[in-house]
Amino acid sequence: MPRKWTAVLLLLQLSCHFSPGGCGKVLVWPTEYSHWINMKTILDALVQRGHEVTVLTSSASILVDPNKPSAIQFEIFPTSLTKDDFEDIFMRLISKWTYMPKDTFFTYFSLLQDIIWEYTDFVQILCKDVVLNKKLMTKLQESKFDVVLVDAAGPCGELLAELLKIPFVYSIRFSVGYTIERYSGGLPLPPSYVPVILSELSDQMTFMERVKNMMYVLYFDFWFQPFTEKWDQLCSKALGRPITLFELMGKAEMWLIRTYWDFEFPHPLLPNFEFVGGLHCKPAKPLPKEMEEFAQSSGESGIVVFSLGSMVTNMTEERANVIASALAQLPQKVIWRYDGKKPDTLGPNTRLYKWIPQNDLLGHPKTKAFITHGGTNGIYEAIYHGIPMVGLPLFADQPDNIAHMTTKGAAVRLDFNTISSADLLSALKTVITDPSYKENAMKLSRIHHEQPVKPLDRAVFWIEFVMRHKGAKHLRPASHDLSWFQYHSLDVIGFLLACVATATFVITKCVLFCCRKLFKTGKKNKRE
Amino acid sequence: MPRKWTAVLLLLQLSCHFSPGGCGKVLVWPTEYSHWINMKTILDALVQRGHEVTVLTSSASILVDPNKPSAIQFEIFPTSLTKDDFEDIFMRLISKWTYMPKDTFFTYFSLLQDIIWEYTDFVQILCKDVVLNKKLMTKLQESKFDVVLVDAAGPCGELLAELLKIPFVYSIRFSVGYTIERYSGGLPLPPSYVPVILSELSDQMTFMERVKNMMYVLYFDFWFQPFTEKWDQLCSKALGRPITLFELMGKAEMWLIRTYWDFEFPHPLLPNFEFVGGLHCKPAKPLPKEMEEFAQSSGESGIVVFSLGSMVTNMTEERANVIASALAQLPQKVIWRYDGKKPDTLGPNTRLYKWIPQNDLLGHPKTKAFITHGGTNGIYEAIYHGIPMVGLPLFADQPDNIAHMTTKGAAVRLDFNTISSADLLSALKTVITDPSYKENAMKLSRIHHEQPVKPLDRAVFWIEFVMRHKGAKHLRPASHDLSWFQYHSLDVIGFLLACVATATFVITKCVLFCCRKLFKTGKKNKRE
Repeated sequence: MPRKWTAVLLLLQLSCHFSPGGCGKVLVWPTEYSHWINMKTILDALVQRGHEVTVLTSSASILVDPNKPSAIQFEIFPTSLTKDDFEDIFMRLISKWTYMPKDTFFTYFSLLQDIIWEYTDFVQILCKDVVLNKKLMTKLQESKFDVVLVDAAGPCGELLAELLKIPFVYSIRFSVGYTIERYSGGLPLPPSYVPVILSELSDQMTFMERVKNMMYVLYFDFWFQPFTEKWDQLCSKALGRPITLFELMGKAEMWLIRTYWDFEFPHPLLPNFEFVGGLHCKPAKPLPKEMEEFAQSSGESGIVVFSLGSMVTNMTEERANVIASALAQLPQKVIWRYDGKKPDTLGPNTRLYKWIPQNDLLGHPKTKAFITHGGTNGIYEAIYHGIPMVGLPLFADQPDNIAHMTTKGAAVRLDFNTISSADLLSALKTVITDPSYKENAMKLSRIHHEQPVKPLDRAVFWIEFVMRHKGAKHLRPASHDLSWFQYHSLDVIGFLLACVATATFVITKCVLFCCRKLFKTGKKNKRE
Repeated sequence: MPRKWTAVLLLLQLSCHFSPGGCGKVLVWPTEYSHWINMKTILDALVQRGHEVTVLTSSASILVDPNKPSAIQFEIFPTSLTKDDFEDIFMRLISKWTYMPKDTFFTYFSLLQDIIWEYTDFVQILCKDVVLNKKLMTKLQESKFDVVLVDAAGPCGELLAELLKIPFVYSIRFSVGYTIERYSGGLPLPPSYVPVILSELSDQMTFMERVKNMMYVLYFDFWFQPFTEKWDQLCSKALGRPITLFELMGKAEMWLIRTYWDFEFPHPLLPNFEFVGGLHCKPAKPLPKEMEEFAQSSGESGIVVFSLGSMVTNMTEERANVIASALAQLPQKVIWRYDGKKPDTLGPNTRLYKWIPQNDLLGHPKTKAFITHGGTNGIYEAIYHGIPMVGLPLFADQPDNIAHMTTKGAAVRLDFNTISSADLLSALKTVITDPSYKENAMKLSRIHHEQPVKPLDRAVFWIEFVMRHKGAKHLRPASHDLSWFQYHSLDVIGFLLACVATATFVITKCVLFCCRKLFKTGKKNKRE
């Protein structure tokens, strides 16, 4: 490339140098696994635009790979936990959630509550290791960051931002029952047509489904105990004044939601909520030679891609055999991300890989279907490339995500714990041979691609905006200054009802008084 | 310009030729005056991108100037009304609204109701001239338009779209009480922090202001009779099936709102609502020579721009003298758009013009302040160029617009009918000498300019999207399929309460039955 062009490209990349706010310093409070994959895309874009990005993470973190050269800086703080503790807890929680009995509502959500408590207790250890570490906090203070980018999956980033007195931006997929979005963010989500997360409902609900949705909302609002009590104590202690975690969360300048209207059912939003789902998606790169040859060997039949995500690369031998046996009966070639013992029933058409270039595979012209656990990242890659799915949801938002794709006609859902080979085979045949699945996947793909601005650019834009203006106050609804009864106008309604009651009472009294007077006068006149 | 570049520019302009949907055919149902100025900006952009734009307007229309060459086509339909009728009715209604007594709430809004009825009755005459004109309708049918762009200020465009069986997009500033946005569009606007239009309140309301806002909402919901009854009849007659105007309005694919968060107080929105305020704004062009010389002659003091909008170019002699006398005392030079008799008190620093290049003047480096009636177009030009304002609101949304600017610290408000020269002089001195007004105006300007996509581009994008995909169904909330009691979950709440009541009843009965049994057994035992 000629030197001149290289210079121009460099200038374009480092474009924050020419913006009124200049280049900024971004502190990041991340979450591991797929959350990190998603957030790293934003961080890379920020770095490419010339900003200084520092990820605050513990010495036990799994995401930090010091061997990988990166322009992202890592501020690694010491913790009593080890990498093994870290991995263990994630795996234990996932396993609990995946195999949790789903038959009774209350048992399911009580267990879920336990899982969330356990997770946030674990995050709290890390959080204490940061906010109570005076040396580290002084260093962070002196670094004069402009913004904190916070993954809302685990608390602490809000507290950090408050301690450093800088604005923060959330990156969030969901909170249980949308509690944080609704109560801290002020997002109005009418239960009549907005299915609450984890309900697995669509926006077209029957009466009984609306009853179910309302019960979920009531449950999450009144019975489901969030993890906040211990956090309220920590926040108050760290800040030296009584404050709740929900109050701190409500101070977010922008909420970058990791979905878009290709995936979501349309619902109300707020000006400081930006839907940036699929920001990590990009065109497919060429496959590794061996994989490309395998894909090409599939001929007209094409290939099927199978992955259960970055957290689950293994399963029981029995499940693996059931699945492998179904895959063996397909005319397609199958690329399966799997790190367990090779199943006995594995067909010659199926190849196992410890890691796959998922996005490149989903964007490959031979790809016909995607067997997925339904993580948001994977679903977005399938949407981006217009690939129909077979969903085997395991935990978290995965059942809900697959429910969205099923409603939109781009997926078939199966239950990972109970499917037979025949079920899987039939589902795969359906999404591959019934053209409606491909059409619907392509429709979602078109919706995703046809946005006025790409999601990644929007995410970067708003982070830069917050840095330049030390917030985005013009987008913050005044509802944040109201109590819940003021928000619902209960005080106003009460006052107006009291006025009406008083007026009615006074009028009635007056009428009665006049009637009595008239009656008495009439009697008197009669007597006279 | 070299030929090659001309060709490249032409290709860039006609970019719809390269988009998957190709170039489209847009039918437009416009509204006169400032609405037309705003909409014409979108139409020019559509034409520039290669789309075919046809404005459907009556032979009595004021906006059509056949002498002006334009790439926009006009389909002029015959009507019994004349251009004079047209102008007369607008002027009469404006005069009524401007001088309406504002002292009592109910009188004011009853008169407003009359004005709106009179206006929509007039629009209905035009609408009948279109939809009942079989020849015209056949011609429109045969033209195979892809979308109707409808100014929602007067009905008919929705009916037209339904008759032609094509999707439509609204361009709207507001409806009285936000009734159309709330009931047809499904926009949730909580009265606790979203001041209803015409209330002149801000989003930071005291308790009594919230009471006032709630009363406005209740008034517009229950007592203010919209103009729909006659329209329901016309729609049902034209479509040959019973339908209401509000139902038809609810079919809008996109709502292009003519404001943005520089002007609005943050409130909930929906994915199919796009806030494109100020889309008509552009950088200032050089002034005509004489005007430029006059502006330059102001020296350090600068100039003040004064206009009451495209509809009001005149006023009573008394008001003109009061205003002219105030302006005469300013150290600034004043450029006043005025078509009446020259006021006796006019100072040498003030020049009268029948027409002014308002945007170019507001963008002129010498401009210090803008005296405005508070129309949305003018306010947006002032925001775009960061010019503080003195508001003399007259009618429609103008008092509300000025209330927004006052709350945001970029304007001082006066009452046109009652101000003295001293009031106006003092207000002008305030906005010119108190730096906070300029700072706030510049802050709004920055918010306006710092958007990921320019408002005009967003408006064009969504119109093209609707053309390409025959709608934007993926953005349409499911609330449209619910009745009002379903939307508010009243049926679900009723059902759940009934369940609780039944359960309580059954449990109480059982407990009582058991108690009685026990009591009886106890008695029996005692007797034995």
